[in-house]
Amino acid sequence: MISFTCDYIEGAHPAILNRLIETNMTQVEGYGEDPFCENARTRIRQATGCPDADVFFLVGGTQTNSTVIDAMLRRYEGVVAVETGHIAVHESGAVEFSGHKVITLPNHLGKMDASELREYLAHFHGDPTWPHMVYPGMVYISFPTEYGTIYSLDELKAIKSICEEYEIPLFIDGARLGYGLASPAADVDLKTLARLCDVFYIGGTKVGALCGEAVVFPKGNAPRQFFTIIKQHGALLAKGRLLGIQFDTLFTNNLYMNIARHAIDMAMELKNIFASKGFEFYIDSPTNQQFPILTQAQMDALDGHVAFEVWDKLPDGRFITRFATSWATPIEHIDVLAGLLR
Amino acid sequence: MISFTCDYIEGAHPAILNRLIETNMTQVEGYGEDPFCENARTRIRQATGCPDADVFFLVGGTQTNSTVIDAMLRRYEGVVAVETGHIAVHESGAVEFSGHKVITLPNHLGKMDASELREYLAHFHGDPTWPHMVYPGMVYISFPTEYGTIYSLDELKAIKSICEEYEIPLFIDGARLGYGLASPAADVDLKTLARLCDVFYIGGTKVGALCGEAVVFPKGNAPRQFFTIIKQHGALLAKGRLLGIQFDTLFTNNLYMNIARHAIDMAMELKNIFASKGFEFYIDSPTNQQFPILTQAQMDALDGHVAFEVWDKLPDGRFITRFATSWATPIEHIDVLAGLLR
Amino acid sequence: MISFTCDYIEGAHPAILNRLIETNMTQVEGYGEDPFCENARTRIRQATGCPDADVFFLVGGTQTNSTVIDAMLRRYEGVVAVETGHIAVHESGAVEFSGHKVITLPNHLGKMDASELREYLAHFHGDPTWPHMVYPGMVYISFPTEYGTIYSLDELKAIKSICEEYEIPLFIDGARLGYGLASPAADVDLKTLARLCDVFYIGGTKVGALCGEAVVFPKGNAPRQFFTIIKQHGALLAKGRLLGIQFDTLFTNNLYMNIARHAIDMAMELKNIFASKGFEFYIDSPTNQQFPILTQAQMDALDGHVAFEVWDKLPDGRFITRFATSWATPIEHIDVLAGLLR
Amino acid sequence: MISFTCDYIEGAHPAILNRLIETNMTQVEGYGEDPFCENARTRIRQATGCPDADVFFLVGGTQTNSTVIDAMLRRYEGVVAVETGHIAVHESGAVEFSGHKVITLPNHLGKMDASELREYLAHFHGDPTWPHMVYPGMVYISFPTEYGTIYSLDELKAIKSICEEYEIPLFIDGARLGYGLASPAADVDLKTLARLCDVFYIGGTKVGALCGEAVVFPKGNAPRQFFTIIKQHGALLAKGRLLGIQFDTLFTNNLYMNIARHAIDMAMELKNIFASKGFEFYIDSPTNQQFPILTQAQMDALDGHVAFEVWDKLPDGRFITRFATSWATPIEHIDVLAGLLR
Repeated sequence: MISFTCDYIEGAHPAILNRLIETNMTQVEGYGEDPFCENARTRIRQATGCPDADVFFLVGGTQTNSTVIDAMLRRYEGVVAVETGHIAVHESGAVEFSGHKVITLPNHLGKMDASELREYLAHFHGDPTWPHMVYPGMVYISFPTEYGTIYSLDELKAIKSICEEYEIPLFIDGARLGYGLASPAADVDLKTLARLCDVFYIGGTKVGALCGEAVVFPKGNAPRQFFTIIKQHGALLAKGRLLGIQFDTLFTNNLYMNIARHAIDMAMELKNIFASKGFEFYIDSPTNQQFPILTQAQMDALDGHVAFEVWDKLPDGRFITRFATSWATPIEHIDVLAGLLR
Repeated sequence: MISFTCDYIEGAHPAILNRLIETNMTQVEGYGEDPFCENARTRIRQATGCPDADVFFLVGGTQTNSTVIDAMLRRYEGVVAVETGHIAVHESGAVEFSGHKVITLPNHLGKMDASELREYLAHFHGDPTWPHMVYPGMVYISFPTEYGTIYSLDELKAIKSICEEYEIPLFIDGARLGYGLASPAADVDLKTLARLCDVFYIGGTKVGALCGEAVVFPKGNAPRQFFTIIKQHGALLAKGRLLGIQFDTLFTNNLYMNIARHAIDMAMELKNIFASKGFEFYIDSPTNQQFPILTQAQMDALDGHVAFEVWDKLPDGRFITRFATSWATPIEHIDVLAGLLR
Repeated sequence: MISFTCDYIEGAHPAILNRLIETNMTQVEGYGEDPFCENARTRIRQATGCPDADVFFLVGGTQTNSTVIDAMLRRYEGVVAVETGHIAVHESGAVEFSGHKVITLPNHLGKMDASELREYLAHFHGDPTWPHMVYPGMVYISFPTEYGTIYSLDELKAIKSICEEYEIPLFIDGARLGYGLASPAADVDLKTLARLCDVFYIGGTKVGALCGEAVVFPKGNAPRQFFTIIKQHGALLAKGRLLGIQFDTLFTNNLYMNIARHAIDMAMELKNIFASKGFEFYIDSPTNQQFPILTQAQMDALDGHVAFEVWDKLPDGRFITRFATSWATPIEHIDVLAGLLR
Repeated sequence: MISFTCDYIEGAHPAILNRLIETNMTQVEGYGEDPFCENARTRIRQATGCPDADVFFLVGGTQTNSTVIDAMLRRYEGVVAVETGHIAVHESGAVEFSGHKVITLPNHLGKMDASELREYLAHFHGDPTWPHMVYPGMVYISFPTEYGTIYSLDELKAIKSICEEYEIPLFIDGARLGYGLASPAADVDLKTLARLCDVFYIGGTKVGALCGEAVVFPKGNAPRQFFTIIKQHGALLAKGRLLGIQFDTLFTNNLYMNIARHAIDMAMELKNIFASKGFEFYIDSPTNQQFPILTQAQMDALDGHVAFEVWDKLPDGRFITRFATSWATPIEHIDVLAGLLR
């Protein structure tokens, strides 16, 4: 059976494994102070066009979100996110565990609407009882979103501008960053995105690595003693080399974007196949997650041959499904699917 | 230059890397629900003699300590440890971050004294003001300790017996567990240790893995919904396979104990060399960490050739140093050191 | 100027002040172990019909909510409330500060709908990804609500029954409990309410006391070592007598319900006056908070004579206002208002 | 029976009760924005010689300690205190509950030694592993200490100077501040003390009030949005008037210091009586807590007539006891004690 259930069902890109083997017996310092991490930082500073960026390597997405958010918020502040944001739904309350509220706004196919953000902030600051409420101290968005959608340059600028107006940082969760940037619909690149936020991370786990997320503070604006905060959150890897080697490899010869583009190519193939056979989509996603609507009979036809996720049932009895491609998806898997959809 | 600074300066045992490569493109579920993790759990249940054990894989030591401690303590409880315990000193306050106090007892070469534990607990429970104090809800010890020392079977039994008397769990931090169990001075084995505590972990990071710690609740006594607590602590790895494959490999054909024994053999060689040349030791350690005392001149002679840690300065001007071996230490490194000590 | 802005703008019922004076030099133990607290507990056990109840006295409402919720939830659990619930809006994130998420449902004039609660819980437990989400571990409702509305007996029974089905406790925030129970619309009394929840508190601050909330665990089901948790939350009063004396007085000769009834009588007078003069109401509230809709001109006419709260502006330019009565509202204040509304 | 068990066994100074009665029906705003609080703030600014001071009223000591400490520390910082400090022992882990470690130094009759503080800070900053440890971000001392002792001006200056050197704030817990300042041994007054720290509080609960502690940031240096942090900690009193009236009264006509002096006079009487009858003292305390050493027979002689606290048993079988006087102690109680000691 082949699977499209998610983008973290395989191991790592072979180039990473090769680097792990080559470097295996080299003795280096721990905790991210090794030359692999240093190289990876240099390459990421170049790729993001941020020569002064502070770059830290953490292990996973939920961990990164809660560590960054907790480090950047003051005690009495919360983080604003859409109600479908990963931190609001699928992180087991990791943000609240660190003492902060996730303040939710409506989502629009997973995206935050700038005017709704402005309205919320204006209303908050105009409410005389606001000192009794959680202060919105940060805005969190994901790129691409949990629904596979991406923000346009104008949308990002609008959100960033509101954040500047209210003097709160903008954090972009890039767990699937490569798949967003590589989308044919994207009109932002890595350097632009880095300029438009105060902190973001480059997701490794879902884009070719075994694990690892690279947190970037583009203007060298990492919170004081962020290293200690990472450790306090249990997010400091002793063998930091494991993260350094992976990101060093991913940012050598443009590997990160290349494999992301492959995933998008596969996703567009898959999308076209579904579309050409008359399937409707729950969301018109331009990234590696596709959401075709299937009947029970159509799902039965795939059963045992192709795995995918069932998201929800529609009132008419059909099902919203999710098919995800990744850096690892071979064209043969798409072909198998195409054959079965016949 | 060769280095003895720590036991996490190399990558992973080659057998692990090979397994990572072999399994790389196999598509499996995330979050520890893959067959590699399942196999690793089965093998660990066998190796620990605990067929009903709950086994979870986390990424690093500090993370594991704070997650386990937070999950097992009630809101108003703290954890009892010696003042030199890793959780009390070198985890950036990760336990306190989760809301719990680390209650400290004196250390004896890194170890907790059972009678001092009993005295503390008796005094606490006899104090009429105890409801205003932090309730000692768990005992934490490390095996081996941060000073390389190990508890004897009798010492463990004594501590466990006090924990039972006061109805609080005993947690053994096994970040270097293999190096403790493989010591010639050890009179406990893995099965015995598992019987004598309520939860412990088998350290992977320092014993052959790239990362990973296997938490074992020997009697199937994991806290309710521990999976969610792991995620809430940012300690759940999306590609759980990375941990499953490593522990599956480490517990196949006794690899874990074999490589631990190698590290101990190297440590005993190193110890003998120092001793034969008349060096004193700060601690008579039976494990992979050795603490010879060096003069400035002796340190200078190694400078540029052999790296090691300087722990502290003695009143007489000499230095306490730490030399650590690991699964990766080749005999050639010992030879080089021996040559330089001449 | 007279004020209807809130129900905590005066001091305490004179009977309380008298008791404070009478008992002032009596030497008693601290921390709630004095005879006044003991008497108050006995009276509350009688008034609630719960002879086995555990009763604790805390100082304020937000404090009580966060302490009770934190004490009753497991680490990985959150509390379910309506989006307008006090804990969700106006407590500065005190629940999140203790590490727990407030999970919100829609509100219906401030109330939770039992069928929506059931639907949420059913959906949660049916979602295969729930271990990645915050477990709903408790239901929080307020009686009366922040909008002055109250639950009927049937509504309470329905919510309680769902809680039992899902084995999670029901917590009733009774910051204004007296004003709810004394409402002509109420078909529950104190004993019934006590039977229908797992924990609730009897609000003192807003119903005649200087400060103080009496937390009642009706079946003697206080969390283990709740005293210590209270202290840990900074909610333990050294001179517990201040709380004991107040609740002892409030529960002597039915004072609590008598003064609550007075507030309701005044509120109904006020409501009738507004209604008879043709004012509309935002909410048809049966308790001490009334929400007449005023034009700017009508507000101007009161300006400088009568204070009240402006809640929000309607699209048609009129304003939702809040007028609150309390145990302390004299009929003369209502008369003044009536005169000005002419 | 008469009692010397503590300094919070009576109600409030009569002047406070009178003011509560006089002002009872005056309608004022809540949450500390009433004119009583405003007056109290003005008087405290005068009394402390700090015209720019930020002054906040909280309810109790543990609450005040944990709120102030949490508000002033960064996420990764802990607070340095002596091992006998109230926050380290008798606050049920309230500081840890907010996520911060209490770092302990040895105590000298309850006091911190400046040179030991310096040594600790120097050692910490010299340790290359310090980013893995909890950063000492604040120093906490109590005046008087839990043992009734007080710091001299020189001792305070020395500690303050070290804090300045390391750029960390000094916090003085003044739960019994009046009793320290009124001591014949004190060579600091309120204005001097205010100049020598970054934040302190004036204890009301133990010095004449029913409850209440006045937190003073002498240089207007309150943490950003401290009001919200107070609420978040459950420490904001709705009827702030209760605190405002009390501190307004206590700081009118020097009442606070006058009643504190009375307590000290009574304590010195009591001390002299014990001394004149040949009793030894565990500590030579210059404040309202006295620690005479009694035999079992001597304790028996007081049994049923005079209550006091037994602190500990000495190796020789005698007992360390504590006798506390307060603003409320009448000379007649001292006489009764004197009679029984005969």
